[in-house]
Amino acid sequence: MKQQTELDISDLRINGERLWDSLMELAQIGATPKGGVCRLTLTDLDKQGRDLVLKWAAEAGMSITIDKIGNGFMRRAGRNNDLPPIVTGSHIDTQPTGGKFDGNYGVLAGLEVVRTLNDYQIETEAPIEVAFWTNEEGSRFVPVMMGSGVFAKAFTLEHAYAATDTEGKTVQGELERIGYIGEQEPGDHPIGAYFETHIEQGPVLEDNDKTIGVVQAVLGIRWFDCTVVGMEAHAGPTPMHLRKDAMQGAAEIMQEIVACALRHAPHGRGTVGMVQVYPNSRNVIPGTVKFSIDLRNHTDALVDQMADEVKAFAAEVGKRRGLEIKIDLVSSYPAQPFHTDCIGAVAKAAEKLGYSNMPAVSGAGHDAVYMARLAPSGMIFIPCKDGISHNEIEDAKPEHITAGCNVLLHAMLERAGIAV
Amino acid sequence: MKQQTELDISDLRINGERLWDSLMELAQIGATPKGGVCRLTLTDLDKQGRDLVLKWAAEAGMSITIDKIGNGFMRRAGRNNDLPPIVTGSHIDTQPTGGKFDGNYGVLAGLEVVRTLNDYQIETEAPIEVAFWTNEEGSRFVPVMMGSGVFAKAFTLEHAYAATDTEGKTVQGELERIGYIGEQEPGDHPIGAYFETHIEQGPVLEDNDKTIGVVQAVLGIRWFDCTVVGMEAHAGPTPMHLRKDAMQGAAEIMQEIVACALRHAPHGRGTVGMVQVYPNSRNVIPGTVKFSIDLRNHTDALVDQMADEVKAFAAEVGKRRGLEIKIDLVSSYPAQPFHTDCIGAVAKAAEKLGYSNMPAVSGAGHDAVYMARLAPSGMIFIPCKDGISHNEIEDAKPEHITAGCNVLLHAMLERAGIAV
Repeated sequence: MKQQTELDISDLRINGERLWDSLMELAQIGATPKGGVCRLTLTDLDKQGRDLVLKWAAEAGMSITIDKIGNGFMRRAGRNNDLPPIVTGSHIDTQPTGGKFDGNYGVLAGLEVVRTLNDYQIETEAPIEVAFWTNEEGSRFVPVMMGSGVFAKAFTLEHAYAATDTEGKTVQGELERIGYIGEQEPGDHPIGAYFETHIEQGPVLEDNDKTIGVVQAVLGIRWFDCTVVGMEAHAGPTPMHLRKDAMQGAAEIMQEIVACALRHAPHGRGTVGMVQVYPNSRNVIPGTVKFSIDLRNHTDALVDQMADEVKAFAAEVGKRRGLEIKIDLVSSYPAQPFHTDCIGAVAKAAEKLGYSNMPAVSGAGHDAVYMARLAPSGMIFIPCKDGISHNEIEDAKPEHITAGCNVLLHAMLERAGIAV
Repeated sequence: MKQQTELDISDLRINGERLWDSLMELAQIGATPKGGVCRLTLTDLDKQGRDLVLKWAAEAGMSITIDKIGNGFMRRAGRNNDLPPIVTGSHIDTQPTGGKFDGNYGVLAGLEVVRTLNDYQIETEAPIEVAFWTNEEGSRFVPVMMGSGVFAKAFTLEHAYAATDTEGKTVQGELERIGYIGEQEPGDHPIGAYFETHIEQGPVLEDNDKTIGVVQAVLGIRWFDCTVVGMEAHAGPTPMHLRKDAMQGAAEIMQEIVACALRHAPHGRGTVGMVQVYPNSRNVIPGTVKFSIDLRNHTDALVDQMADEVKAFAAEVGKRRGLEIKIDLVSSYPAQPFHTDCIGAVAKAAEKLGYSNMPAVSGAGHDAVYMARLAPSGMIFIPCKDGISHNEIEDAKPEHITAGCNVLLHAMLERAGIAV
């Protein structure tokens, strides 16, 4: 063991190889032939994953708490244990065709921070905790980000318990079955600050050749269903000027959705992912088209303005083309800015460590969104190959994995303080 | 019976009430609760319909021939039976949710012409025939317009015989079962001229408040499948400028298809009826979109030019957006102009009878398309309510039913000649 006194803290680095090896070992549980991981929440494989992580935590001398929704908290005591812990974490459940890094990296990076502090016998002022949150992915049970959502009281424990998978199994039953219903009331657990390290799941860092994304906010999301009703008619005998072609009205609105996102750059996003055409026959002019609208931006005011613009455009299209157009809100997720202090801690750590970095936004949801409602929070992004995630070919470079963890270490140390 | 000598031929009119009553009686066979007809080809109901029509023909003193594909020819002798007959006809099979008029009107209008000639004891120079063609609709067996297609040698009898329905039953087997395989070789049957009376199946006559459409041609059709391949990606983390959104490229091409049809007015038509999006998930940018393209115009040169323009546009979209775009021909139906003499006979009859009329084109296929390859042919359209057909609510006004049949009578008489 190196002596703390011999070390200038700014020279402190995590052990990248050890972190990588742990990631690869955890990825064996539920490994798929294509190199990905299928470890759905609350399955036997999820239990194996949780058990392994907790074993490592125990080996690192950490104490463990499980709450009633199965969230796990692994604690390294500080000098002043009356202070709320500085927490990092993410999730270890995966998508059915998931990768090795999504979520898992955030948990094991936290563990590596603790292992490094142990290596150098560094005592922090505030305690340090590493959390894994139950069912972030939402692919087996909805809602997504379930564990952190219950913790932050975004919805109730009962609501989460009652969720069923396609076989009718409940969250409560499956938590019991794998032995992960703890004693603690979710949320009954103070947090001094929260950091989450994650692969970007997008192409921006790679495109800009940057190592670290200093995440400023998670984009607000509005999901709508748009229904365009015209008049179905035979494609042959109906001349163009007598048509009420629902697909053509829909196509015009679809293009406005992108145009609107571009007008609200740099963070405006507009996507039509799902389209259904009725009767969907080659020689029938479509009578009805339903499609999804996904609008995002980094403030709620902006995303609401985007929605208003799309709605106004659609109303004009309906009037001009004689179509009946309805746009119904399906879901709304507020934008979540991160805390200036945490953003600053991440940026400062990246600079100090000499990593190229840039401000980033998260277009996807993360457990950090709910934590940000409870405590100052921040996120650290690293690039992933071609921006791909939720896919077995998801990949990240060892040097980026190491860099993100080093930034986490220094950001957490800044917030936790070092016991002199 | 009125005496032929007492009658000026130009005063001759069919019995609209009798025609309407026959239409309503035939529509009882396979009647649906919503007021339509479901009388699929070569079913027991089709047999009942055929039997009824042939019974009426026999009562009108006509001789009957059935050919090997089940086409029926009901003949009223002329004075000179060495002349090829002047033929009219259509089909009596319907769509699963068909109406009372589509096809059935063309057959029973022919029968009413004969009944009227009988009433007035008018002998024609050339014989008159009324035909019903097997399986025009193509909803149980493909290809569509099967009986007239075999007759015109567009495809072989063997090909038609081998066609199966969803239960695996063949055309040959079903023809045998209902007793409608005749002796005559299809096509071995001379035709002097061919007329077909039909509801328009489109909204143009109604929109122009005209009683008779003097059909000039059947539009040529080109069917394509267009496949647009981009890159699927998460709708949240992927900024607009780094997307390869297949749906947006598709939407642009879809709008060009309509723009192209409008550039090639008045008969250009462009329709996207079928759209499939992959993976069709709300928060995934579509990676692949497949859609159908239906292009029509009244000459093959024009419809081919439309296809070229759409392809060039799509190539430009692919290049600009970084998408891979493929446009594959699925089917091609040549445009079919009708014969000047027959068009003239229809126009002259409509004028003489004082019916408002206009030139028209047929956007849909009809048995007359194949007859036009064999003999001078023409079609008479009457309005149908809201242009709707292939639907149980298909409707036509008794006065239009009568008018179309009167035009048919006079056009046929002009071609057949009256024995003095």
